[in-house]
Amino acid sequence: AFRAPSPAELPELGPTDVSQDPLDRLRHARGQALPDLVRLRTGTVARLPDAVARPRAADEIEALLAAASEAGVRVVPWGGGTSVTGGVTPPPGDAPVLTLDLERLAGLHALDEVSGLATFGAGTLGPALEAALADAYGGRGATLGHFPQSFELSTLGGWIAAASSGQESLGNGRVADLVAGVSAVAPAGRIEIPPLPPSAGGPDLRRLWVGSEGRFGVIHRAAVRVRPRPETLRVEAVLMRGFEPALDGVRRLVREGVPLALLRLSDEPETQVAMTVGLAKSRFGALARGWLALRGVAHDAALLLLGAAGDEAEVEETLERARSVLRPLAPVWLGASPGRTWQRDRFRHPYLRDALLDDGVSTETLETAAPWSRLVPVADAVRAALRAGRADDEHELPVLCHLSHAYLDGASLYFTYFWRTPADADAAVERWADLKRRASDAIAAVGAATSHHHGVGSYHAPWLEAEIGAGGLRTLDAVARAHDPRGVLSPHVLLDPVDRLGAQ
Amino acid sequence: AFRAPSPAELPELGPTDVSQDPLDRLRHARGQALPDLVRLRTGTVARLPDAVARPRAADEIEALLAAASEAGVRVVPWGGGTSVTGGVTPPPGDAPVLTLDLERLAGLHALDEVSGLATFGAGTLGPALEAALADAYGGRGATLGHFPQSFELSTLGGWIAAASSGQESLGNGRVADLVAGVSAVAPAGRIEIPPLPPSAGGPDLRRLWVGSEGRFGVIHRAAVRVRPRPETLRVEAVLMRGFEPALDGVRRLVREGVPLALLRLSDEPETQVAMTVGLAKSRFGALARGWLALRGVAHDAALLLLGAAGDEAEVEETLERARSVLRPLAPVWLGASPGRTWQRDRFRHPYLRDALLDDGVSTETLETAAPWSRLVPVADAVRAALRAGRADDEHELPVLCHLSHAYLDGASLYFTYFWRTPADADAAVERWADLKRRASDAIAAVGAATSHHHGVGSYHAPWLEAEIGAGGLRTLDAVARAHDPRGVLSPHVLLDPVDRLGAQ
Repeated sequence: AFRAPSPAELPELGPTDVSQDPLDRLRHARGQALPDLVRLRTGTVARLPDAVARPRAADEIEALLAAASEAGVRVVPWGGGTSVTGGVTPPPGDAPVLTLDLERLAGLHALDEVSGLATFGAGTLGPALEAALADAYGGRGATLGHFPQSFELSTLGGWIAAASSGQESLGNGRVADLVAGVSAVAPAGRIEIPPLPPSAGGPDLRRLWVGSEGRFGVIHRAAVRVRPRPETLRVEAVLMRGFEPALDGVRRLVREGVPLALLRLSDEPETQVAMTVGLAKSRFGALARGWLALRGVAHDAALLLLGAAGDEAEVEETLERARSVLRPLAPVWLGASPGRTWQRDRFRHPYLRDALLDDGVSTETLETAAPWSRLVPVADAVRAALRAGRADDEHELPVLCHLSHAYLDGASLYFTYFWRTPADADAAVERWADLKRRASDAIAAVGAATSHHHGVGSYHAPWLEAEIGAGGLRTLDAVARAHDPRGVLSPHVLLDPVDRLGAQ
Repeated sequence: AFRAPSPAELPELGPTDVSQDPLDRLRHARGQALPDLVRLRTGTVARLPDAVARPRAADEIEALLAAASEAGVRVVPWGGGTSVTGGVTPPPGDAPVLTLDLERLAGLHALDEVSGLATFGAGTLGPALEAALADAYGGRGATLGHFPQSFELSTLGGWIAAASSGQESLGNGRVADLVAGVSAVAPAGRIEIPPLPPSAGGPDLRRLWVGSEGRFGVIHRAAVRVRPRPETLRVEAVLMRGFEPALDGVRRLVREGVPLALLRLSDEPETQVAMTVGLAKSRFGALARGWLALRGVAHDAALLLLGAAGDEAEVEETLERARSVLRPLAPVWLGASPGRTWQRDRFRHPYLRDALLDDGVSTETLETAAPWSRLVPVADAVRAALRAGRADDEHELPVLCHLSHAYLDGASLYFTYFWRTPADADAAVERWADLKRRASDAIAAVGAATSHHHGVGSYHAPWLEAEIGAGGLRTLDAVARAHDPRGVLSPHVLLDPVDRLGAQ
């Protein structure tokens, strides 16, 4: 049975429900990165929050933050707990830790259909958010269209705090583009950024809350840009002849302005895995392989998924434009069937990690972004860094890669890698930490982004200066101090450069 | 002859060229708002910078800022001097003022055609910037596509500092969307934000420099997102039946994602002026008027300009989609001829102010932004506030309005208004100030944006808190102090809420 360490004494926290139940504390102790899984599966979670508070209103957050600031209690805002960067883990040190679960600050507050603006509580989960918009526009429904892989478990406030991107951000924009207004509470006072279209009223402060990771204040409400729900999303699969040549095709799709909803290009190893898994399920697996071999694509194939949203005519027109742009690269069009499989499983992949751990295999993901001209060197550097972390008893360390988001000036790269899990929990975490350090060092050395959509949290904080420089850290530190003079809010994320990966 | 006040003594400023020539100081004393014109035309410019420095490199800016900080000299960065918000006027007070003209930090430093990234000195003027891109892409040319009305006289650094929008920002994005990297020098140190596609490496600090108005540091270089130059830009004119009904059509164009390059909708009074001026030039003016009357559009006509960019086929396809979306509103299509007139004159309108002043008429413009659902009340409130400022000897105070930029969730409104110029220069400025206060009060009262693309500067600073709240001011103040601890950089802009309109 789980025996939680005794919680610290807490000051009087006002009218908010505060739980010190051991299981509640345990459920709020870790995020969703590999070390979180390892610690939870092996019963070796060392630090728990001392209490979990569930505020019902901004006033209650205000009282909680005032009491915490006064008493030096550290406060960790909690949305869905799906951070993969140590963002929701209790900060190290002796100070008591209070986790603020925002689940009671959920739901739709206002919907302006004419402007396409919806105001939600920050604790609203993805599916609840979309459900609340289902009756808009005379029953057609509205959508925010933000579908990160964590969609089922994560919240609007968490998406904003972590600068999230979703699977359809190519068409709908990243969360940074979708946020029109932010309401937050900080120890130094309230923040109300009204939902306005782009303004020249000084720097756009919305953007400072996107990626703020709970460091500046607790986001409790946000106004987001919604749109009428498209009739359909069709995802088609294409086999391209090699990852590198296909990058050029993807770049052209973006530059030509083909209005795709999503786009994802796997490298050759990831394509092999997808085809092995996908075709194994098919009655015609062997035939399909033979057909592809005849078309001259096999081991160099790079799987490209293209999604278009709208009514049937719009979808067909968009995909036809995509076909026309890609034609010179002689792709093999596989149609909508693999796309349907992807759509069915789009939020499921993270759950595979448990099954793999049962088999003694660890897996983790990481992502970065870079300009088009440096994308291949960045991919090569990260692959090489991870492979160099191969243990003596491993034949190889498999690294899969895909381009997950494309922009006019560059794209993001998403890596999935696998290794044999050491039997001891501490050793399993240390191995994970070693690989993460190698990849992060490589990313910093080639000048790519610290993260494209997972965020900085605690795990990437040692490498943030490589991206934003001393001037960038000075900026963020000043903002944090202005809103949180005593530094009680998530002091371990974003601005704490100590490498604590091994101690996770 | 102009007799400049004697300049203050300045400390040793290092190796930079520093001029104390009276005419040089005068040319750097004022921006381009109406009181600037009045003061320059009447020889009543009261305050001049004490010197104008022209740094050639970031090192020189560093030395200048160190010396200025040490001696308490105020520093005003100067791009093209086209501020209409008092942003380049010497700050009030007794401290000496040094204006930093960035004209020698101009030109293209690097061009990455694959990524579509170009790095320029901040002092690069609009035409020079576009000219430097003319040979890219095998002679086809690249474009930034940023064309504010001040294009011919303003600089890249100024566009970033003032959060500029251009006439084709609908298609190409605002300057906020175009900036990929920023290099700046502040008294506390350098800032280097590398050109990366969207990242989750904390809040997007690029956005903090967009709209920074010289308050946080001196932007000396920037990397911007460029694209292949479109073959053609075609602007067509449409007469809609009333401004309010037409707003709905414009909103649909944006929501349907019709990829227009530009879009501008004039209200009925502005349309009357445009048609009077435009048709007066036409040999067929009377015929055209008769024809329009037959079609049932006359005094309720609202002129809509639609621009599409690309090759001929793309342009035609985009405009055909626009026609299809607008068809239910029964517009009258006028074709490309009025659009060509607009394209020819697109940067000329500000020069008309001088001719009007010669005739004893003052004119000024102001702009704001609001969600679609509040656009009409905002327009009405601003019109009413300005009209209420009519003087006893004026029959009416004409106010023209157009929608200048449209977004998914709202749009900007741009007002042009006219009044009889009082003979005395101080009275002329006081009259201008009275109207500006009335409009700014009205905008703040209805919760619209302080500014859509002119910026805050000194003139709008008293109203900024109405938009971003005490929490927003606290944020910006913290950033300013972190980069400029002694407050020497443009202390009168953005964060100084004192109303000095009457003293301009």
